[in-house]
Amino acid sequence: MNYFVTGGAGFIGSNLVDRLLSLGDAVTVYDNFSTGIPEYLETAKKHPGFHVINGDLLDQEKLSSALAGCDFVFHLAANADVRFGTEHPAKDLHQNTIATFNVLEAMRKNSINKIAFSSTGSVYGEAKVIPTPEDAPFPVQTSLYGASKLAGEGLIAAYCEGFGFQGWIFRFVSILGERYPHGHVFDFYKQLRAHPDHLDVLGNGHQKKSYLYVQDCIDAIFIAQEKSRDKVNIFNLGTDEYCEVKDSINWICGHLNLKPEIRYTGGERGWIGDNPFIFLDCKKIHSLGWKPKYTIHEGIVRTLEFLEQNLWVMERR
Amino acid sequence: MNYFVTGGAGFIGSNLVDRLLSLGDAVTVYDNFSTGIPEYLETAKKHPGFHVINGDLLDQEKLSSALAGCDFVFHLAANADVRFGTEHPAKDLHQNTIATFNVLEAMRKNSINKIAFSSTGSVYGEAKVIPTPEDAPFPVQTSLYGASKLAGEGLIAAYCEGFGFQGWIFRFVSILGERYPHGHVFDFYKQLRAHPDHLDVLGNGHQKKSYLYVQDCIDAIFIAQEKSRDKVNIFNLGTDEYCEVKDSINWICGHLNLKPEIRYTGGERGWIGDNPFIFLDCKKIHSLGWKPKYTIHEGIVRTLEFLEQNLWVMERR
Repeated sequence: MNYFVTGGAGFIGSNLVDRLLSLGDAVTVYDNFSTGIPEYLETAKKHPGFHVINGDLLDQEKLSSALAGCDFVFHLAANADVRFGTEHPAKDLHQNTIATFNVLEAMRKNSINKIAFSSTGSVYGEAKVIPTPEDAPFPVQTSLYGASKLAGEGLIAAYCEGFGFQGWIFRFVSILGERYPHGHVFDFYKQLRAHPDHLDVLGNGHQKKSYLYVQDCIDAIFIAQEKSRDKVNIFNLGTDEYCEVKDSINWICGHLNLKPEIRYTGGERGWIGDNPFIFLDCKKIHSLGWKPKYTIHEGIVRTLEFLEQNLWVMERR
Repeated sequence: MNYFVTGGAGFIGSNLVDRLLSLGDAVTVYDNFSTGIPEYLETAKKHPGFHVINGDLLDQEKLSSALAGCDFVFHLAANADVRFGTEHPAKDLHQNTIATFNVLEAMRKNSINKIAFSSTGSVYGEAKVIPTPEDAPFPVQTSLYGASKLAGEGLIAAYCEGFGFQGWIFRFVSILGERYPHGHVFDFYKQLRAHPDHLDVLGNGHQKKSYLYVQDCIDAIFIAQEKSRDKVNIFNLGTDEYCEVKDSINWICGHLNLKPEIRYTGGERGWIGDNPFIFLDCKKIHSLGWKPKYTIHEGIVRTLEFLEQNLWVMERR
């Protein structure tokens, strides 16, 4: 198979690319390197079936030529900066909604009709049912990020109906693991390197979080694609456990052998639009035979080990 | 109050404008007249509190200046051409999703934070629960139109959460009545004027349809705004009855005193992405004291009477 991976130089994207190449597939990465990291593609570059194109999804012409000859699109490129959405409201619209439309149109022009899409548990807004199943009550959006991903989902489903596409939509919890480049484990580790005696934490530490380890996430994506062949295939991807931010602080400090003073800013939420709790019901993907191999604790430790061995990742930002 | 009505020269918009003016409010209409009809504003133009601006929602600068000084936005402008979505896939994205974003941004720049939005029962896709309530299971989109309206809803809700906006989102069934400018009653009447001996009908005539009369629809919008003051207020607007296309043909032919041969193209749907049945559970709006004054049959007859008295509407298209 000839795979096209948008955002292939990103955290999840580059891990997926390595996996696809290791299975003998050919891969073209399309990334504008706004947040993608060239070093993440160093292993990939050694494979003869690998190509990388430095391009923006808003450049329709470049995108359309780049796609020629591919069989399947993994559309992972996105503005994943959930937290600062209100500081630049157009960013989610352009980089998530319009970019997804451009991918679909470029596929249509090239007669490619299979797409997998990284959506988010944020599309459930403040879910009324927890753990939240894929067919939870019609949600009300609470973030520009969630709204833009929901818009992307809607476009993909409409292309499936209107143009004979086949789509796999994955609603992720937060993902952790090797090449993890942002989020609270990253921030906490960075802080503790700068000042091991204290840690500033947004909210009250009781925010509940569910994390999935990146290799488990990729396993799930592969299994869904292999075993679920509906027109539109929507899957929650998460773990059946969750932790509080306080737990993750204990695990991080335990691993680093530190006892910092923890300074909470207080309040239930880290920021406006931060969901107090995204916890997904993953029965649907379990029914296909997948379950995560790693616990949240193990995922956090693996993330820390990666950061410890790749301090340059933190210097970049 | 100083109201701003996008799409105010359209079918629902112009009826709303007349109502607002009759209540003593000031109204600015913003319309690009791509489908808006100047004649629909003739009554409005006699009011001193009325202004009309010929502008496009994709012209952010013009939109932003036009909004200055308004208190409340009715965002009704849209590409309402559901059926031919797949012939021009970018149209729904630009005229519905991006246009809604532009309205929200222009409001934010002008410190206006109240918006009512015409969404659609199409956002429920092929609903699993019928009649479909507002919190039906998370739907899968089946049309570019539905997807673009869902994207608009999501943007509005995210602005409510992130920027302190207050929103009223109305999911309409098809609306009928004076100034109705397209859809099957329009098409059937036009056909029967051209050839009273036969009528060509898409599908098998058993497609079920729910219609709401435009003045009932406007009553509901007013009541929702007056009585529902949450951050995000979402309401289905429809009737508790439905008809089959066959029924409406009988009513139309009865009113016109015609007995044409009916030629069905066959099949369950009129076109790809046509929902076999949009029938909304309207308990939520009923609980505020609203109920429609007109039946579907009466709505269809009033529509025909309007068309009979305004044949020029059909000549325009």
